[in-house]
Amino acid sequence: MSYSQLFSQRATAIKSSVIREILKVTANPDVISFAGGLPAPESFPVAQMKAAFDKVLVTDAQSALQYSTTDGYAPLREWVASRMSTDGATITPDQVIIVSGSQQALDLIGKVFIDEGDTVLVETPTYLGALQAFSLFAPKFVSVASDEQGLDASQLTAEDAQAAKFLYALPNFQNPTGRMMSEERRAKLVEVARANDLLVVEDDPYGALWYQAAPPASLLSRMPERVIHMGSFSKVLAPGLRLGYIVAPVEIARKFEQAKQATDLHTSTIAQRVVYEVVKDGFLDEHIPSIRTLYHGQAQVMLEALSEHMPNGVVWNVPAGGMFLWVTLPDGLNAEKLLEKAVARNVAYVPGTPFYANVAQDNTLRLAFVTVPAEKIRHGVAQLAQIFGE
Amino acid sequence: MSYSQLFSQRATAIKSSVIREILKVTANPDVISFAGGLPAPESFPVAQMKAAFDKVLVTDAQSALQYSTTDGYAPLREWVASRMSTDGATITPDQVIIVSGSQQALDLIGKVFIDEGDTVLVETPTYLGALQAFSLFAPKFVSVASDEQGLDASQLTAEDAQAAKFLYALPNFQNPTGRMMSEERRAKLVEVARANDLLVVEDDPYGALWYQAAPPASLLSRMPERVIHMGSFSKVLAPGLRLGYIVAPVEIARKFEQAKQATDLHTSTIAQRVVYEVVKDGFLDEHIPSIRTLYHGQAQVMLEALSEHMPNGVVWNVPAGGMFLWVTLPDGLNAEKLLEKAVARNVAYVPGTPFYANVAQDNTLRLAFVTVPAEKIRHGVAQLAQIFGE
Repeated sequence: MSYSQLFSQRATAIKSSVIREILKVTANPDVISFAGGLPAPESFPVAQMKAAFDKVLVTDAQSALQYSTTDGYAPLREWVASRMSTDGATITPDQVIIVSGSQQALDLIGKVFIDEGDTVLVETPTYLGALQAFSLFAPKFVSVASDEQGLDASQLTAEDAQAAKFLYALPNFQNPTGRMMSEERRAKLVEVARANDLLVVEDDPYGALWYQAAPPASLLSRMPERVIHMGSFSKVLAPGLRLGYIVAPVEIARKFEQAKQATDLHTSTIAQRVVYEVVKDGFLDEHIPSIRTLYHGQAQVMLEALSEHMPNGVVWNVPAGGMFLWVTLPDGLNAEKLLEKAVARNVAYVPGTPFYANVAQDNTLRLAFVTVPAEKIRHGVAQLAQIFGE
Repeated sequence: MSYSQLFSQRATAIKSSVIREILKVTANPDVISFAGGLPAPESFPVAQMKAAFDKVLVTDAQSALQYSTTDGYAPLREWVASRMSTDGATITPDQVIIVSGSQQALDLIGKVFIDEGDTVLVETPTYLGALQAFSLFAPKFVSVASDEQGLDASQLTAEDAQAAKFLYALPNFQNPTGRMMSEERRAKLVEVARANDLLVVEDDPYGALWYQAAPPASLLSRMPERVIHMGSFSKVLAPGLRLGYIVAPVEIARKFEQAKQATDLHTSTIAQRVVYEVVKDGFLDEHIPSIRTLYHGQAQVMLEALSEHMPNGVVWNVPAGGMFLWVTLPDGLNAEKLLEKAVARNVAYVPGTPFYANVAQDNTLRLAFVTVPAEKIRHGVAQLAQIFGE
């Protein structure tokens, strides 16, 4: 039987990634990998998680193992609403949908908003997982100019802003660049969104992971009536549970609920119960500072190694939080081609190309630094510096 | 801001369900609900689940709480492949994708196969959740004649069979009817599928829940090259974990893997690890017989109550397994209209209408019997009999 002729156009359009193939070798423990996007496992609060699983399974197992509602566990939705309200706007629990990780939020956003050919505005570059999720619904991506200060809404034409279903942005320590959108850029985006009646998706998995100062107020707090805010427990607790949330205007939240029912009925009951147990009495406020300290230290090691080893012409940003930084090689160097050389020397990174929705800058790459021991960061960066210098 | 104008066509087409609204009142503990599709919580193996969570969190917590691969936990995929191979066909682990519950399998099938207007063949009636999942991708549903012996492939025209992307069937104790496809009907479906080069989706959440004799061999075992088989841990362990699996030809499995990566990255790592711990040494073979006994007993109570109370002209099937049976009222009675009267007397069921993809028989309804105590089954059925007799 020939299967491929039965595939939908969207499925046929999904290509195997060359980069993914190259990076498969990085599972080898000899490889120093700056490619992964994993949080540091030593930051997972194992004791608290275990205590919460114990408590839920001892006190209310039958309910925690049963089907539950599509919108999510009510106490957890209340907790999210309350936490999101501290920032300025008042968020109610009926604006919150619990999802099976942020990637599911992207899928639901694609389902609920994108018809084939619709305009979606994205940063330059932007999160690859969002491009993958949205692409299944065949939008037309328009890349909005972005730099060290983040997305620059003043570069967005009124025509594109008015045509777009939404603008997708990661204001805090963006994946892939580690950039943070400045106060001025946030204010400008709010102004442009209001002037053009533009809906904004604010993806914020890393916002709590600042190093020395909290980022400017969220887009949600500035214009809750036109922001869909995505949050996640993956980077502040643990990703293996697959738990995140969407905050949106009520009418949109109800549409997400309907789409989610058709997509996976609901998110794991026990995962929601356990995470609620862990977070309900303020644990995150004790826990997150230790992640900040860990990640800041890791960033420092990588920044020092880059300064020490990289040849002239290679530039990078100094992230104020998160798990990534962005390297730009001299014009003419191709980070995808150089990856093969790097992997041959047992060092890996992700080339920048796949993070661009339209024209790619192929001399860019993403370095992830939170899971690699300091000594290996230094050695790996030295190796990369040699390759880039050759 | 006006949100509705931004919604996609597929999202706009999702309607709120009138029935869902009526059934909201059934959360009231005074209501005897034959409407739910929940498995009996007393069948959940709480002690085994707790021991497995303990073991995984004590021995390998960091890995169990970390991101993992999209296709699923390798030992669990191997276990599924081995278990599915006992039935005749040889299934390899690379044919298995672990999913976040069967509903996600339906979403992935829709994503990978359905372009707008594509023909999808379904039973008459069929599972509502499948209609909801597939509808987001806007197929043309063609209902295939079905009766007490299940779907009748001899009624399927060659034109429809050849035009279809796939046929979707639940051969064992179907939701909503409780029907089991007979040996003859399975053989006929295989013949028709081969003659018309038709792909078949076999959804099998209830197959293990037979009462007195196992159902005939699966469609997967008869033609593994043209079957996508969906399985679930929801009815044999517990649904709150959201864990199921797809078995498919390798080329299709790889497409599901790509689509799943864009949809939710992967299924909960810890849920997969825990379920593997529970099932790996043969626990299901000890456990499932107790569910069969429980559900068979519940079915008997309901069947006796129906025989005792229902007026002439009301007919129902005698299920050989599963959680549901199907009632047909005399012509002219409308089960949806009668639901309001039933709810007013504190009894609920699901009218048959939403389970039909095309022309509905509105004098049908689904009764679920596994979570209702015997005394309440008798009382509830007596109430319904009065309403239908009036």
